[in-house]
Amino acid sequence: MTASTAPILLVDTPEKNADLHYASGFWAPDALVYLHTAQGAHLMVSVLEQGRAQQFAESERWRRLKIWTPDMLKLKGKHRRSPGEWAAALLRATNIRRVQVPGSFPLGAARRLAARGINLTLAPGALFPRRACKRPDEIGKIRASQTAAVAAMRAARACLRGAAVSAAGWLKLGRRRLEAEDVKHVIHTALLAHGTMCRDVIVAPGGQGADPHERGHGPLRAGEMIVLDIFPQHLTHGYWGDLTRTVIRGKPTPEQMRLYLAVKASQAAALRAIKPGAQLAAVHRAAAGLLERRGYKTEVVEGRPQGFIHSTGHGVGLDIHESPSLAPVEGTLRLGNVVTVEPGLYYPKLGGVRIEDTVLVVRGGWRLLAPCPHGFEL
Amino acid sequence: MTASTAPILLVDTPEKNADLHYASGFWAPDALVYLHTAQGAHLMVSVLEQGRAQQFAESERWRRLKIWTPDMLKLKGKHRRSPGEWAAALLRATNIRRVQVPGSFPLGAARRLAARGINLTLAPGALFPRRACKRPDEIGKIRASQTAAVAAMRAARACLRGAAVSAAGWLKLGRRRLEAEDVKHVIHTALLAHGTMCRDVIVAPGGQGADPHERGHGPLRAGEMIVLDIFPQHLTHGYWGDLTRTVIRGKPTPEQMRLYLAVKASQAAALRAIKPGAQLAAVHRAAAGLLERRGYKTEVVEGRPQGFIHSTGHGVGLDIHESPSLAPVEGTLRLGNVVTVEPGLYYPKLGGVRIEDTVLVVRGGWRLLAPCPHGFEL
Repeated sequence: MTASTAPILLVDTPEKNADLHYASGFWAPDALVYLHTAQGAHLMVSVLEQGRAQQFAESERWRRLKIWTPDMLKLKGKHRRSPGEWAAALLRATNIRRVQVPGSFPLGAARRLAARGINLTLAPGALFPRRACKRPDEIGKIRASQTAAVAAMRAARACLRGAAVSAAGWLKLGRRRLEAEDVKHVIHTALLAHGTMCRDVIVAPGGQGADPHERGHGPLRAGEMIVLDIFPQHLTHGYWGDLTRTVIRGKPTPEQMRLYLAVKASQAAALRAIKPGAQLAAVHRAAAGLLERRGYKTEVVEGRPQGFIHSTGHGVGLDIHESPSLAPVEGTLRLGNVVTVEPGLYYPKLGGVRIEDTVLVVRGGWRLLAPCPHGFEL
Repeated sequence: MTASTAPILLVDTPEKNADLHYASGFWAPDALVYLHTAQGAHLMVSVLEQGRAQQFAESERWRRLKIWTPDMLKLKGKHRRSPGEWAAALLRATNIRRVQVPGSFPLGAARRLAARGINLTLAPGALFPRRACKRPDEIGKIRASQTAAVAAMRAARACLRGAAVSAAGWLKLGRRRLEAEDVKHVIHTALLAHGTMCRDVIVAPGGQGADPHERGHGPLRAGEMIVLDIFPQHLTHGYWGDLTRTVIRGKPTPEQMRLYLAVKASQAAALRAIKPGAQLAAVHRAAAGLLERRGYKTEVVEGRPQGFIHSTGHGVGLDIHESPSLAPVEGTLRLGNVVTVEPGLYYPKLGGVRIEDTVLVVRGGWRLLAPCPHGFEL
């Protein structure tokens, strides 16, 4: 039995482990043990989850999911609380001595299993390669979250456009300054109305936008570029969407406009490269090459990286960042991949520009999951 | 050097690992390497986080945090993307050969480190025992989330109380039935107004409430008990709150009322047992004993557990479930612990009742973090 055909063992919470959520279909806030064999799957849950898990297994019979609990395997005392012991008991009950596990598998459970003679092999690649090629129902779910992101983006743009501008250039909400936090509230409210949430939404003005993971805070002003990155997760099914626009209230400077147009052209170049069979690295090169040709350098200045300092995109599904990656890596795009296309430029003095859409890879090219207006100037 | 004084190594995302968030103070959506030594701490981040991490380290100097990147350690090719290789390079640079790690430490990284001769010991207990005893600033943050939960609970009660009741007993929102999803929307909106979110809020009517982790769905009716469990996380600082009430629209049956009063008395009994030095198991026994004395049995009926089927409470902080646990385990309560007190009874035919408050352990007893009205009948 090779590693790739050995049963797959997962010990984690579905909330933190999208493979577990994907393979079992079951959601729970606590640790579970999941064992995936060619003959069917086994899910071990605490007594608290037993009723719900049993119902779930019966409602989705195609998964061939057998539910276990610590009681059923006669675990006693401390062992009842240790997912590592659960896994050991489940492997004993199913007579399995050799499993493959992901790199994220918890070392504590691994040592307990090794001490019981279980052979654990690290899976050489993705545990469930099919996860990268979305089924129609999954595409519909990602589209729902992406549609929510588009609605929230429209609301954010309307909020920024509707603000007054003070003599000193500050955006105003009635008598006080409009802050990034206010725009986030508008976004959160719109996302909620669409059954989604984005805890870490980005509204990053000016220099804050030059840090791709800065979530943004404080008062907003005219003439500063604002990065709006909205990546909601659906409250019911857990699939994500991902959408970014960069906007500016008032007239951009020629320098800002040139930066924006370069990123927009870079996104278009990446999109032209996207189709089944395209090299992941080639898509990234298309985006990066265009930025270089327009004279935007990626380099470290005074200890701080600037330019195009991240990859061109990533898969989206039950994880916000999943396979495939549009980056200088090996591999090709496949039919049914759902990926973001999000080149960006970041310069501490100018700020950041990022433009991101989420697309489905279809025969001969790609399709937007939900169209969102562009438009830099508000 | 004993295990307990060996440097602590963490490889994870702060989003998924509260120890990493707690110890580093740094938030990021991607994997980081954190190394905690008696002399100071080391945080290794990707080039994307470098600017933000450097600023953070300078703004919180008391943490003595040194920021590293793959570039600074001259990592090349694939190694630049592997947190396990990051950890190996950081340990080489700091001349450390022996570390302690948590049970959740990723096996992939552990094997890479072991292959480079690093000795990894599983930490025997909590990595940062201080996490269980909250500082005043942490108490304030948990109180903020708990206050949000109370506001959302008031809104949910008002929504249920305001609904009309149809001749057939359904709660009505205008011309259509009021559903669990509508009440969740009211709760989400109130939480957002207080800067918090609760993705998995529970509004579980009737039989659904008999499953403690069923999030609830569908139309609501008079005469059915509804479990409302609101556990928001603050959007800014990440601390949680936790609050549950069980309500019923209309007149409860004597059986429902007896169940409710038993759980309420059980919570009071547990609270009476809470003070610094109290045995964790004794607090749980106080709650469980009262329910038994009132004749409520905990047992498995037709393969399904019923009665008081979970522990009495858990710590709350940067994790929604953290130490200490009010359960049949060893250990005592300490000054500054923040714990939920949440006995419950679950019977498939009757439904569930759970009443939960979050309290701070203070000299001689406890204090509610945010008071919330009781009241079963709406």
